Amino acid sequence: MLEKALAHAGRNQQAYLSQLQAYLRIPSISTLPEHQTDVARAAEWVAADMQRLGLRNVRVMPSGGYPFVYGEWLEAPNAATLLIYGHYDVQPVDPLDAWQHDPFGAEIQGGKIWARGASDNKGQHFAHLKAIESCLAATGRLPLNVKVLLEGEEESLSQNLEPFLRANRRLLAADTGVISDGAMIRPGTPEIDYGLRGVVALEIRVRGPGRDLHSGSYGGTVLNPVQALAAMLASLHHENGTVTIPGFYDRVRPLTPEERALLNQAGYTLEQWQRETGARLPWGEPEFTLLERIGARPTCEINGIWGGFSEEGMKTIIPASAGAKITLRIVPDQDPDEIARLFQEHLQSIAPPQIQMDIRYQSGCWPVVMPLDAPEIRAAARACRQTWGVEPVFSRGGGSLPVVAAFQQILGAPFALIPFGLDDNRHSPNEHLGLEYFFNGIQTAIRYYYSLSSEFELGD
Amino acid sequence: MLEKALAHAGRNQQAYLSQLQAYLRIPSISTLPEHQTDVARAAEWVAADMQRLGLRNVRVMPSGGYPFVYGEWLEAPNAATLLIYGHYDVQPVDPLDAWQHDPFGAEIQGGKIWARGASDNKGQHFAHLKAIESCLAATGRLPLNVKVLLEGEEESLSQNLEPFLRANRRLLAADTGVISDGAMIRPGTPEIDYGLRGVVALEIRVRGPGRDLHSGSYGGTVLNPVQALAAMLASLHHENGTVTIPGFYDRVRPLTPEERALLNQAGYTLEQWQRETGARLPWGEPEFTLLERIGARPTCEINGIWGGFSEEGMKTIIPASAGAKITLRIVPDQDPDEIARLFQEHLQSIAPPQIQMDIRYQSGCWPVVMPLDAPEIRAAARACRQTWGVEPVFSRGGGSLPVVAAFQQILGAPFALIPFGLDDNRHSPNEHLGLEYFFNGIQTAIRYYYSLSSEFELGD
Repeated sequence: MLEKALAHAGRNQQAYLSQLQAYLRIPSISTLPEHQTDVARAAEWVAADMQRLGLRNVRVMPSGGYPFVYGEWLEAPNAATLLIYGHYDVQPVDPLDAWQHDPFGAEIQGGKIWARGASDNKGQHFAHLKAIESCLAATGRLPLNVKVLLEGEEESLSQNLEPFLRANRRLLAADTGVISDGAMIRPGTPEIDYGLRGVVALEIRVRGPGRDLHSGSYGGTVLNPVQALAAMLASLHHENGTVTIPGFYDRVRPLTPEERALLNQAGYTLEQWQRETGARLPWGEPEFTLLERIGARPTCEINGIWGGFSEEGMKTIIPASAGAKITLRIVPDQDPDEIARLFQEHLQSIAPPQIQMDIRYQSGCWPVVMPLDAPEIRAAARACRQTWGVEPVFSRGGGSLPVVAAFQQILGAPFALIPFGLDDNRHSPNEHLGLEYFFNGIQTAIRYYYSLSSEFELGD
Repeated sequence: MLEKALAHAGRNQQAYLSQLQAYLRIPSISTLPEHQTDVARAAEWVAADMQRLGLRNVRVMPSGGYPFVYGEWLEAPNAATLLIYGHYDVQPVDPLDAWQHDPFGAEIQGGKIWARGASDNKGQHFAHLKAIESCLAATGRLPLNVKVLLEGEEESLSQNLEPFLRANRRLLAADTGVISDGAMIRPGTPEIDYGLRGVVALEIRVRGPGRDLHSGSYGGTVLNPVQALAAMLASLHHENGTVTIPGFYDRVRPLTPEERALLNQAGYTLEQWQRETGARLPWGEPEFTLLERIGARPTCEINGIWGGFSEEGMKTIIPASAGAKITLRIVPDQDPDEIARLFQEHLQSIAPPQIQMDIRYQSGCWPVVMPLDAPEIRAAARACRQTWGVEPVFSRGGGSLPVVAAFQQILGAPFALIPFGLDDNRHSPNEHLGLEYFFNGIQTAIRYYYSLSSEFELGD
């Protein structure tokens, strides 16, 4: 049965790729209001594909924001139930002029498909849909029960996910879950992520004088809000890269020597880091490796800053206001709400009396770590090994998937994280996905469904 | 003769005001390329008015950038020659939605005329033109020789002024000059500025990773360029408001007790500062008064900052780059080129090795201080006193007028600075000029021409 499904997937690569192109051409940017109809269109498009390939009970389900797309195949009464999660929304594309291809053209060049969402996440969850299609088309069935849930607000931090999960606990009940929405550490080396950082997003706004002032007429008597903001932001890190917020590290679970050894087996080199980032010298806590800093250490990042005049030319002003967007990545057992509170309290405590400051806590997501000896991890390791012909590496991801924390808390289902792509310029210009990664993703998914079915039979 | 000219000005207030409205309706923003034809149109408009009112040899003279407008009346062979300077270009108007009137509507409401350029500087130099018109219309002559020079690049730091002055030394030769382009300290109190700060304008660009990075995938290993820039900018000031750049204060001429006493006679109160700035608490060097900080102390201001994502919503990135615009206000005997060099050297010395930084020195202007016992100062004091009925205050202005430094260096002519307006939201939304200030400006100018003529006769 497995071989038939794999063979079907192999024969239909070209058709699956054309379908992916159509999906990628819908600019479903969930953070930008002007793309509202595009996001809705992507939901309808993928729901239609799920219907066509044989999932049952396919529905576009409304939420407070963009809808969830759901479909299921539950005709294996004695087998486990697997929940597959993905997101059909994508990141913004600015700066547009840095793209070498139309970000919504889905052109194929150099063995890659180029588009916003190619890797994050349309290409990766679409590989699961094509795995399901291959099984159903080739064998008429799946080795286990499957539920697919796609959301449209992952890039805007999944504000409606938790209420939706709570309201649909029964519909979504599953033994285990899988998400393919990350990056393998290097070409040809499959990876299984057993942990993820959480995230806390905040926006700071600082106001000084009542209006932009002539810098000649008032310079020297007014605290410049940009200067005040710069000073506060600069004070958030010690020289050694640690965050200065009091209490920030109190709940950070220390890494054991065993886990450090496993984590660092992946062997992420400075050279690879340089190639991926385009930066020359790394930065951060010197007593932790690059992999540890990314996966197992909390951070504080400025995502954007603004204030005053930034166009061509000059304008000799003291700006009236300034602002910044901040995200803190957190690790077990940091609590997003507590970290947001510590951040706010610290900034208010250091704010100079000449300015007014508002800090808006936009959203938070818990970090997670999964047990390394779970059946999901064994099944995933086997599927990866058989597809790629090499042992997978085990990693803690630096990014955040609110769905993982929410699933564990609300549905009680553990999640396997099996990335199908590479870094692929996700969240940057020139996002892409290697065709080999899309096709191997489909194969890995098919093998995972079969392996997982056996693991659960053995476990019962 | 004086009385006839004053009476003529009084009778023609309405006509002069209508002409000013027409002038203000031309959006001559010199720093924005899209207003190129508007700036040129303003030059033609004011040249036509100068021709009409009786100036001779009126010319729109090309420069490397926007043209200079020149006109003269030289039919008082035994009298002194006065050079009147102004600028027909204006500041940008952003943020547009903060304006309560069309910035180029020149509406009259509440005894004020509302427009960008109303005070800075069209309204103020137009008062001189109407003073000349009143003298010529009422008496057929002027009490001294007059040359008028208007430029179109004052708001973009007068890059072509020095070459123009050098090339036209003979045409512009004068015994003395006058500029009305500043703010009287408070309503009804005339002011004579005997000093101005210089300015050094720079732009900093910082680059880190080769592209915007996913803050989850790389956060903790990459020095965020916004953070690096914030840290460098924050380090430019000590807690007490002084600038940290080594050598910055080396050439600052100390204030004498006598000058401090004169400067502070103007009696600028905290309450007035609060009303003007909309700020609550002042900031700056505690051992200097507000007037001293503005007029006699150098500063470093961030005019604008940018980097990463600043739109609605969020984007979890480590930005690839960041930038800031800086102006340093300088005082005698600081040298703009030296200050620019000290700034660049200091920033390069503190820049972290993970980033690349370019600092562009955009322009510089010398500071000036004029002798308090000059004939110009006596004549100006008399004209102000007779127009407003109160003693003028003597002040060192915080702003910068490149033309003053250039005139002193190139033409050898001292300049009297007699502001006709108030703060008037110059360089901010809702710029305006009180009608009383426009009309009293015309009267002050007429009286100044007559007084100055007598002073020079006495002095000869």
